[in-house]
Amino acid sequence: MSIFVETQRDTASRARCGKLLLGRGEVPTPAFMPVGTAASIKGVEAETLEHFGYRLLLCNTYHLALRPGAELIAQLGGLHRFMGWEGNILTDSGGYQVFSLAALRKITEQGVTFRSHLDGSLVELTPERAVEIQRALGSDIMMALDVCPPHDACPEEQLRACRLTTAWAERCLAARERMGGGLLFGIIQGGTNLEMRRRHLEQIAALPFAGLALGGLSVGEDTSSMYRVLEDIGPLMDPGRPHYLMGVGRMADILQAVSCGIDMFDCVLPTRNGRHGQLFTWEGEINIRKATFQSDDRSPVEGCRCPTCRRYSRAYLRHLFQAGEMLGPRLATLHNLFFFAEFMAEIRHQIASGNFTPWAKALLSKYPSSSISSTQSN
Amino acid sequence: MSIFVETQRDTASRARCGKLLLGRGEVPTPAFMPVGTAASIKGVEAETLEHFGYRLLLCNTYHLALRPGAELIAQLGGLHRFMGWEGNILTDSGGYQVFSLAALRKITEQGVTFRSHLDGSLVELTPERAVEIQRALGSDIMMALDVCPPHDACPEEQLRACRLTTAWAERCLAARERMGGGLLFGIIQGGTNLEMRRRHLEQIAALPFAGLALGGLSVGEDTSSMYRVLEDIGPLMDPGRPHYLMGVGRMADILQAVSCGIDMFDCVLPTRNGRHGQLFTWEGEINIRKATFQSDDRSPVEGCRCPTCRRYSRAYLRHLFQAGEMLGPRLATLHNLFFFAEFMAEIRHQIASGNFTPWAKALLSKYPSSSISSTQSN
Repeated sequence: MSIFVETQRDTASRARCGKLLLGRGEVPTPAFMPVGTAASIKGVEAETLEHFGYRLLLCNTYHLALRPGAELIAQLGGLHRFMGWEGNILTDSGGYQVFSLAALRKITEQGVTFRSHLDGSLVELTPERAVEIQRALGSDIMMALDVCPPHDACPEEQLRACRLTTAWAERCLAARERMGGGLLFGIIQGGTNLEMRRRHLEQIAALPFAGLALGGLSVGEDTSSMYRVLEDIGPLMDPGRPHYLMGVGRMADILQAVSCGIDMFDCVLPTRNGRHGQLFTWEGEINIRKATFQSDDRSPVEGCRCPTCRRYSRAYLRHLFQAGEMLGPRLATLHNLFFFAEFMAEIRHQIASGNFTPWAKALLSKYPSSSISSTQSN
Repeated sequence: MSIFVETQRDTASRARCGKLLLGRGEVPTPAFMPVGTAASIKGVEAETLEHFGYRLLLCNTYHLALRPGAELIAQLGGLHRFMGWEGNILTDSGGYQVFSLAALRKITEQGVTFRSHLDGSLVELTPERAVEIQRALGSDIMMALDVCPPHDACPEEQLRACRLTTAWAERCLAARERMGGGLLFGIIQGGTNLEMRRRHLEQIAALPFAGLALGGLSVGEDTSSMYRVLEDIGPLMDPGRPHYLMGVGRMADILQAVSCGIDMFDCVLPTRNGRHGQLFTWEGEINIRKATFQSDDRSPVEGCRCPTCRRYSRAYLRHLFQAGEMLGPRLATLHNLFFFAEFMAEIRHQIASGNFTPWAKALLSKYPSSSISSTQSN
């Protein structure tokens, strides 16, 4: 049985609305997942995320496996109970962090060994172990272990990554069966090489994954290269399963990806940029630390109904950042998470009302810095 | 007209209940004021403090005058609007921070000059300027500028501090009149010398202050010396005005001071210790970072109804601190502020029901580390 129901489709693009049918409640799509790296969305209680309308978070297997440990979390009743979150949780496989954070990693057919960035201890991550950890955490959606090469990897390395990712995908599925089930998404690699992407999509889509994810994008390549992949691959992805673009969170990128049929996103952008004083608005980002806000009594983002904008001024937020007060990062993060929830709700509304494509085009024209590809696939 | 109404009095001690009649609502006493140094209770929104029942906060004139500046705050509509707080605000005079933080301070009859700890600029603080700044901030209760010597100052220095504090007190009152009013509290110095304290109390109490504060305590002296001062001076303080013990916040000290007739307290303890993982309980403090809590699924403080204890476990809180997650300091601070509000409410309840003295004694016996003086004045 599919976990995805498509409810509306845009006529002028591949954008679509739908819902994920998950164990802890339905999730309307397109959906954005805030990232709770170490079982916490930095500075924000689970309760607040519920109020903002989030029904699905992402947590990082790599971080949790190293600290406090997956088995400890299992013993404490699982990740949901541990972090006080009653909605759904998607966990990544840990692979991405192994490739970006860990030292001395060594990839073999068997899996990947690396040294923990915390204490230098040697850790082995295999497809089987990745599933075992995610099951111990109690994830609602588990990700298969993949190999994510750098964006400038040579074709041979990209090809090897695809080959290993497919082999590991099959082992993840087998492990999942042995261990008693659970939802597992497969990951498609292939860099920005369209031919390789297509072939890898075919391999992964042929496997009984509950969802299909695009990995290895937004890892440093040109925006236009990523858009080319999305436009080429999006239409080829099985419409009966949810499509997840990993690690993407820029507003322009989300709009572009939605128009190519992507249903799910995750990114640290609203939280990390918030901690640095960046506030998201419909017109782009503003940096609240700027001197011009020193005596600006207006709401941080005028018209915004978030807890921050309803109560505090630009001058106050700027002051908090200047004074190094932890309330500053928190208030900015709250605004950004509220804004992203609104942004995704508006995308769904525009798709449902048949107006997504002109609306998205008008919005994109406000972001001069983003290089929007002119060829829109549909 | 007095701003203080005494509503109940303990029969076995000088403990009393009352209320402060302030511009932004009544404040039941004995009351604890959380400290919002730079116009923010670290990591906590004003709204949350209201929910916890706080009606009066303390903010630091010294910090706000240096950054962002009192005149800027005035231009932005005052401190309440600036920080989004609808309750009352007491501001200190800035004197204490000048003595504890600033470099190169020089005290003359005129006032005190010092170098800002932020940028080294030379600043002059006079009694008149202290009132002017606090009026610009829009404080509900202003404090007169005093001289707060170190606890081990020689008698000559203590005497000079008393003499200057009295002279400055008169100038503060005169400045307040010229500038158009506002509530002003006077500060009593004299270190741990009972004779000097009594004489200074007489001088300050003779002036038309709305409230009387004890300064220069909890600055490093023995606890027993502080208790001796409280027991000696408490009964001599004008019962028609509120009595404020500055900078005190240990639970044992609050109980002891309440039994001597103190009505108001402020301290960074619940917030600062919270940021270091210390949680207050009825049985004393626990450090949530301890290894023993690693797999402890119980509520941080069992039976506590605060937002932290209702939703999260000891194991989770410990994990947040171990992982350096900012949610850890926030959740611990929330618990402590909730607890302090409950602690003060329980003190008021016990006084009102005539049971304060035995209740306080029983509670104090649980804190073996606190040196409780055996002679209770009443």
